Amino acid sequence: MSISQTVQSGDWKGEKHVPVIHVEDQVAAGQDVEIKVSIGDEIQHPNELEHHIVWIKVFFKSEDGKFPVEIADFNFSAHGEDGLKTEPTGVTKVKLEKSGTVHVLSYCNIHGLWENSKDVKVK
Amino acid sequence: MSISQTVQSGDWKGEKHVPVIHVEDQVAAGQDVEIKVSIGDEIQHPNELEHHIVWIKVFFKSEDGKFPVEIADFNFSAHGEDGLKTEPTGVTKVKLEKSGTVHVLSYCNIHGLWENSKDVKVK
Amino acid sequence: MSISQTVQSGDWKGEKHVPVIHVEDQVAAGQDVEIKVSIGDEIQHPNELEHHIVWIKVFFKSEDGKFPVEIADFNFSAHGEDGLKTEPTGVTKVKLEKSGTVHVLSYCNIHGLWENSKDVKVK
Amino acid sequence: MSISQTVQSGDWKGEKHVPVIHVEDQVAAGQDVEIKVSIGDEIQHPNELEHHIVWIKVFFKSEDGKFPVEIADFNFSAHGEDGLKTEPTGVTKVKLEKSGTVHVLSYCNIHGLWENSKDVKVK
Ligand SMILES: [Fe+3]
Ligand SMILES: [Fe+3]
Ligand SMILES: [Fe+3]
Ligand SMILES: [Fe+3]
Repeated sequence: MSISQTVQSGDWKGEKHVPVIHVEDQVAAGQDVEIKVSIGDEIQHPNELEHHIVWIKVFFKSEDGKFPVEIADFNFSAHGEDGLKTEPTGVTKVKLEKSGTVHVLSYCNIHGLWENSKDVKVK
Repeated sequence: MSISQTVQSGDWKGEKHVPVIHVEDQVAAGQDVEIKVSIGDEIQHPNELEHHIVWIKVFFKSEDGKFPVEIADFNFSAHGEDGLKTEPTGVTKVKLEKSGTVHVLSYCNIHGLWENSKDVKVK
Repeated sequence: MSISQTVQSGDWKGEKHVPVIHVEDQVAAGQDVEIKVSIGDEIQHPNELEHHIVWIKVFFKSEDGKFPVEIADFNFSAHGEDGLKTEPTGVTKVKLEKSGTVHVLSYCNIHGLWENSKDVKVK
Repeated sequence: MSISQTVQSGDWKGEKHVPVIHVEDQVAAGQDVEIKVSIGDEIQHPNELEHHIVWIKVFFKSEDGKFPVEIADFNFSAHGEDGLKTEPTGVTKVKLEKSGTVHVLSYCNIHGLWENSKDVKVK
């Protein structure tokens, strides 16, 4: 079994690890597009030292591109230190010129790698 | 000269590298607090392969804490690949129990390390 | 196509992107194990601003573990700045208690995600 | 107090947090130089979920360069998950053309930021 075969997915409304991708379905070419990613929108994921979401990476693969390009990498660093706990959510901003797919890869320190994707049409 | 002595600062309205910290002055204890950091709010910083903002780290130091705790680490990954450019901005969310200071450290691949801070009062 | 389906692999002797994993086949339980990962051992990969290896992540999945655990994350940060270029190689150290598999995931800013793995027996 | 003013240092033989920089004093121009960084060479630092070294960043500032350039960023990801603990050490490789200083910045989740540096002469 390869590492990519361990990447899990599902419906984020029923599986708390699946990253949720908040982005418009249609955006204008060359305009700033906000992409928010979060985990636990419906069912909260634990956020403890022993068990937490460590990072989320955001990629974009244009419809005529061969490979995904990494756009952003969020690390949720605090898990109880001095009472601080970072929530597993991040927002990034990018200009899109071509339609394609936002891909998200995330990692729970106990339950491994998870993925999700959402198409974005550029007019 | 040590690495910490190379960290630069200034007024973000006049110096384009200084990270801007967007957070309420007063927040309620134990509630989610959104912290947005960005670079170039007044004067845009270049966003090219040859010259771009690479990362921003967000810390919090409570007023009775001895050391800053890292809350989030944002990497702006795309700088022209397949036409994609990540804007140097990120949003994180954290619950605060005690008043303190949000500290931000950022890195430009040409102009090195920069910092800024903002106090937050927890009621 | 999901992001995990874009992860490529192959024989590192013929495909320059495939990460090479240098670790003993057999190690003693509870002893420090050095794991070196590198890209381009046989055929060099470009190391330019326009085209370079950005990061390598190292995971371990024990034979009775359900999910891979991230051990280390290497970012190769310099690609020409002030003449500096980080080579795409890193070394990490970990104690293993159980046999399993070292998994490596890497990212080229032009050619996307790549993976490789190597079994390690703990005596 | 700014974040850079919180960065601590000292003699690594007496203070367990200070990163140790292993690199030759003199190297040849344009040759691969191995830089090993580690924490706890003399006095071991704890490596537990509750208390551990999270990351080390390596920079180089050439003697005629104005700013430090980030060479590598190591994240020590495992702190007990499935029995795995990443040791706080990493090795990177870079070609140097000019004499200068290797700077290292590191972060303990309990004791904050630490730094050290070492000069390297390029012949
Ligand atoms: Fe989990
Ligand atoms: Fe700059
Ligand atoms: Fe490539
Ligand atoms: Fe410590």
